[in-house]
Amino acid sequence: MDTIVLVGSLAGTLTTISFIPQVIRTWKLKETKDFSLAMLLLFATGILLWTVYGFWIDSLPIIAANMITFCLILFLLWMKIKYQ
Amino acid sequence: MDTIVLVGSLAGTLTTISFIPQVIRTWKLKETKDFSLAMLLLFATGILLWTVYGFWIDSLPIIAANMITFCLILFLLWMKIKYQ
Repeated sequence: MDTIVLVGSLAGTLTTISFIPQVIRTWKLKETKDFSLAMLLLFATGILLWTVYGFWIDSLPIIAANMITFCLILFLLWMKIKYQ
Repeated sequence: MDTIVLVGSLAGTLTTISFIPQVIRTWKLKETKDFSLAMLLLFATGILLWTVYGFWIDSLPIIAANMITFCLILFLLWMKIKYQ
């Protein structure tokens, strides 16, 4: 595989999977005070727009990475509202 | 401006600026217990690789957005280590 494609794929994989340990921690602790609601809302909206952009330019990696991230962020947002 | 470029730019702007209210909140509260250290480390590494990728494909928007995000995440990571 091309090194540049590998770096991009690794970057996308890391930024996407990074939210998995966060969701697990928040699910266990049931504590969300430290999170900024504005951050979660802005980030979720941005990720949704990245997904739209991915569909537009027909890029499966952008669609997949952002759809997964969006689901994880939506779950964090739901816990932020539920546990605050 | 092309609608697709506008959606992409708005997406990048939102995901980047979303960390500003988070940094402000964490700076004020001095509380980082709810954050997963693994999330911050994986996310920071991913963003660093996105910056490398941006330099490689010579994309100023990718470089700029990810360098700003990286600085904000690095600051959060420093506070996570300092205040935990």
